[in-house]
Amino acid sequence: MIDYQAPLRDMQFILDELAGLGQITDLPRCEDASPDLVAAVLEEASKFASGVLAPINRQGDLQGCRLEGEQVITPDGWQEAYDQFREAGWIGLSLPQEFGGQGLPKLVSTPVWEMWFSTNMAFAMLPQLNVGQTEALMIAANDEQKSTWLHKVVSGEWAATMNLTEPQAGSDLGATRMRAEPTEDGSYRLFGQKIYISYGEHELTSNIVHLVLARLPNAPEGVKGLSLLIVPKFLLDDDGQPAEKNDIRCISIEHKMGIHGSPTCTLSYGDKEGASGYLVGEPHQGLKTMFIMMNDARFNVGVQGVAMGERAYQAALDYAQQRIQGRNIVNGASNQPIISHPDVKRMLVSMRARLMAMRGLLYTAASWFDIANHHADTQVADKHSRYVDLLMPVAKGWCTEVGNDICDEAIQVFGGMGFVEETGVAQLFRDARIMTIYEGTTGIQANDLLGRKILRENGTTLRELLFDIRTTGKALEQVDELRDLATDLDELTTQLHITTDWVLEQDQARIADLYGGATPLLHLMGTVCGGWQLTRMALAAHAKQNAAGEDPDYLAGLISLARFYMATFAPQAYAHARAVRYGGQVLTNFPESAL
Amino acid sequence: MIDYQAPLRDMQFILDELAGLGQITDLPRCEDASPDLVAAVLEEASKFASGVLAPINRQGDLQGCRLEGEQVITPDGWQEAYDQFREAGWIGLSLPQEFGGQGLPKLVSTPVWEMWFSTNMAFAMLPQLNVGQTEALMIAANDEQKSTWLHKVVSGEWAATMNLTEPQAGSDLGATRMRAEPTEDGSYRLFGQKIYISYGEHELTSNIVHLVLARLPNAPEGVKGLSLLIVPKFLLDDDGQPAEKNDIRCISIEHKMGIHGSPTCTLSYGDKEGASGYLVGEPHQGLKTMFIMMNDARFNVGVQGVAMGERAYQAALDYAQQRIQGRNIVNGASNQPIISHPDVKRMLVSMRARLMAMRGLLYTAASWFDIANHHADTQVADKHSRYVDLLMPVAKGWCTEVGNDICDEAIQVFGGMGFVEETGVAQLFRDARIMTIYEGTTGIQANDLLGRKILRENGTTLRELLFDIRTTGKALEQVDELRDLATDLDELTTQLHITTDWVLEQDQARIADLYGGATPLLHLMGTVCGGWQLTRMALAAHAKQNAAGEDPDYLAGLISLARFYMATFAPQAYAHARAVRYGGQVLTNFPESAL
Repeated sequence: MIDYQAPLRDMQFILDELAGLGQITDLPRCEDASPDLVAAVLEEASKFASGVLAPINRQGDLQGCRLEGEQVITPDGWQEAYDQFREAGWIGLSLPQEFGGQGLPKLVSTPVWEMWFSTNMAFAMLPQLNVGQTEALMIAANDEQKSTWLHKVVSGEWAATMNLTEPQAGSDLGATRMRAEPTEDGSYRLFGQKIYISYGEHELTSNIVHLVLARLPNAPEGVKGLSLLIVPKFLLDDDGQPAEKNDIRCISIEHKMGIHGSPTCTLSYGDKEGASGYLVGEPHQGLKTMFIMMNDARFNVGVQGVAMGERAYQAALDYAQQRIQGRNIVNGASNQPIISHPDVKRMLVSMRARLMAMRGLLYTAASWFDIANHHADTQVADKHSRYVDLLMPVAKGWCTEVGNDICDEAIQVFGGMGFVEETGVAQLFRDARIMTIYEGTTGIQANDLLGRKILRENGTTLRELLFDIRTTGKALEQVDELRDLATDLDELTTQLHITTDWVLEQDQARIADLYGGATPLLHLMGTVCGGWQLTRMALAAHAKQNAAGEDPDYLAGLISLARFYMATFAPQAYAHARAVRYGGQVLTNFPESAL
Repeated sequence: MIDYQAPLRDMQFILDELAGLGQITDLPRCEDASPDLVAAVLEEASKFASGVLAPINRQGDLQGCRLEGEQVITPDGWQEAYDQFREAGWIGLSLPQEFGGQGLPKLVSTPVWEMWFSTNMAFAMLPQLNVGQTEALMIAANDEQKSTWLHKVVSGEWAATMNLTEPQAGSDLGATRMRAEPTEDGSYRLFGQKIYISYGEHELTSNIVHLVLARLPNAPEGVKGLSLLIVPKFLLDDDGQPAEKNDIRCISIEHKMGIHGSPTCTLSYGDKEGASGYLVGEPHQGLKTMFIMMNDARFNVGVQGVAMGERAYQAALDYAQQRIQGRNIVNGASNQPIISHPDVKRMLVSMRARLMAMRGLLYTAASWFDIANHHADTQVADKHSRYVDLLMPVAKGWCTEVGNDICDEAIQVFGGMGFVEETGVAQLFRDARIMTIYEGTTGIQANDLLGRKILRENGTTLRELLFDIRTTGKALEQVDELRDLATDLDELTTQLHITTDWVLEQDQARIADLYGGATPLLHLMGTVCGGWQLTRMALAAHAKQNAAGEDPDYLAGLISLARFYMATFAPQAYAHARAVRYGGQVLTNFPESAL
């Protein structure tokens, strides 16, 4: 596969014009993110991604991980890459300075993580866990715990995991059985089994800090009885150094369709005397904290959607430019690169249009994170916090579905070569397939969107968002050359508008119908938000078209992407809206015996 | 994975009610296909598929094929299964009686092939080549060639291949370079390389009959200079028995994402003195004959679409009924099988609706094949021949795309378990991914549909088909309980109607725009044809609902499937139609430099 080239121009355009990097830099504790620094960070990250992570991606797939005794062996090159990654300080990029991080805004770290995922998703899952765990511990851990664990997790000297799933407790964490029994010294002993633990065991670091959901004695049933505990692979000695091995064993690793370089472990806790752990936060409040870590993970998986799509797109574009085959349908010329065939061009434009739509949405959401976390005006912060909450299932659910589609389309551009493993696009397709599953399937995201994010607050935030989208429409109307996009955006937004009204009008008796339409609703939201971002991009591109030093072709291309999206993807909103309003009802009435 | 159960009731319903098995049996040379015989054939095939082919499918994936020297080793169990398959006479099911086949209509063999593909696609690709080659040789070979080769190919004593692709000649066969030089005895010597040859080499049979596209000396450039030759792996002695090894070598096999049990070979012809071959039909007329073989193959790949989808659906349904997880959204009950969650039920219903739509379309097309081949009235035969031609790219293109989607959705139902190879759905997803590529990608099918099947005849056959669909709509209007479906079908068909009108109105200057919308047009055609079949099914089900001995729940379920399709899939026709009319134009104007 061709070398990865980070799409720095696209990234920078979206950072500046859509996500408002300039305003983010003005926020308290975000001042370090000067334009020069951000450009330098992206440039360095791009070199690291292309130079260190990309070259070992395929061997990670071919070799995979293996379990020898209780030892997990990661692929060749993993150790060296991890050491370089850690030493370069990439793990702490957006983490708190007080624990050794660089404290840069999430808006800056988001394109950087996109690069890691583009070049080696299986590898990048490892340091991503450090970020999520740090964010969870920052909120829930006490000062002693922070000082014991966080420096090492932020630096990457120790690795991190999140331990949620058990065989009977997947989407439904309320069914968790892992027991944590108190001891006299205030610590706990854990007993039970966790499955699907990414990087649950390996020897890349001198310790692994597991964050584990478990039940204390007499805990309430269900999700309200879950507590969170730190359970290290090695217990620390008095100097805070890893010493005695804790009572945790990796008893198997999964044979997966993709991300072979990332060991997916079954961990057995407490086969002997019990695994020692330390309660984080209040008893029975663990899920709330785990959701912080999971929310971060969900956003990152959304970023994987655009990242995997970008890598697949670059490969497909290169192949389409190189591969000579067939005759031009217009002028009959032979020996044409296949990009000259309208259907191949269609696939490439459709890939790029959706990549830019997703990137616009994800980076904008990242800026909302920063505003929510740092804005001095609590009303502004609160509004953006609600926006983030509303958009999170869309960022995760829609971007991963679209990311899969793009990887699929890349294979189609490659034709027969796409099915052959040597080209690397098959690996992208296989690796990417986990994205719509882990950290909550698309169906789980859709239920979250409908139930917790729309119905629970009676659509308040969604209506604010719709107002913002309409504002973009008004701006488009003011520009003669973009008035067609104003009409398109209006039609598109109207589908979400009438669907929102309809959803909020239904009474409790229709609740099953509504949930039967949850996934189409998520797709509708994604389709509208993606179209919104592309029209915002078109507006920004148009405004810059006559500015000195700008590339008019590039800017015209961005406007064309919006037009293509409006002609091909936006009309799907109509179908999604119909599926919400009519599909759910048919489904409720559908006799299960007829399946 | 659970055992495969052939969907005999669904198959029989479609055979009888949609594809008109009764009328096919009345055709000349189809009389043997009595209802009892057909039911017995399906029953036997179902036992063979479940008992012999399904059990070796996973080991075929795990072991794959390997090349040792020039020898290709197929997976364990392949030889035994092939011998049983051959001895049971399955290969000749629909092949001419004069060469040892059973001469049953294509309508009868189609559900049988569906079963082979459902249970072991990688295996079934082997005997499928015998069928295609027989059909090609029946038309193009001379009597001596037929009597030399066909008995053994129909019985399966010898295997068959089709050799089209070369490194520089994939979708564009005009770039073929394989040379065939005449010798004094009237045979030819072949020199060149062929790639992507399914079952190009193996030791499952005592000979392999390659059908090879090549150029004779002084052949015209492009596709008009291709000739077809029989090139056996072993030359025959005077008794017609395989003797001397021909000058053909397997020099590599591909490492593919799926169908590991099917060796995909690179064959080198004529490394020494040239591979001996025998011209089939006239010089330079090879492509026409190869298209007969390829058309058959395309139809069969369409059948793979429903077959792989069916297997994935059965696995997902079983898992959804067994897997306990989560709370019922309506009544809050815990420990529910996941099928009780609306989103999971949605996926299963959407899988089944599309399976029945595809099956309706494919079996109906199979009946058209039979009418085209056997009807005494040449006008009727001709009309159905044109219908087959029009629908072939849809049967191949749309059914494979939908089949992939269904395999994808099955993984989603399995959640994390779907990404783990042990469950078998990951294999289905990987195996199925080739379907939209081989025998002409979806883009190639779309170009064929637009150019050769619609524009070339100015939409004549398509308009006849639209008239037939409208006739179904009129029938629906006559039934009070189905009047909503009449409205839905009318809206759906209108999208194809206005798009057809629009396409035919465009002049030559818009040709690139049109081809930029070819794939959405194919999806539009598929969506409409699928909806048409489901409403035909609803009509038939309604008519039988009060008949004695019928299962009213089953019939009500079929009607509900049509309603679900109309509420969720049919509205996508609107989006496809918009993409045809507006997307192509944006695409033509899109600057390639902005990719």
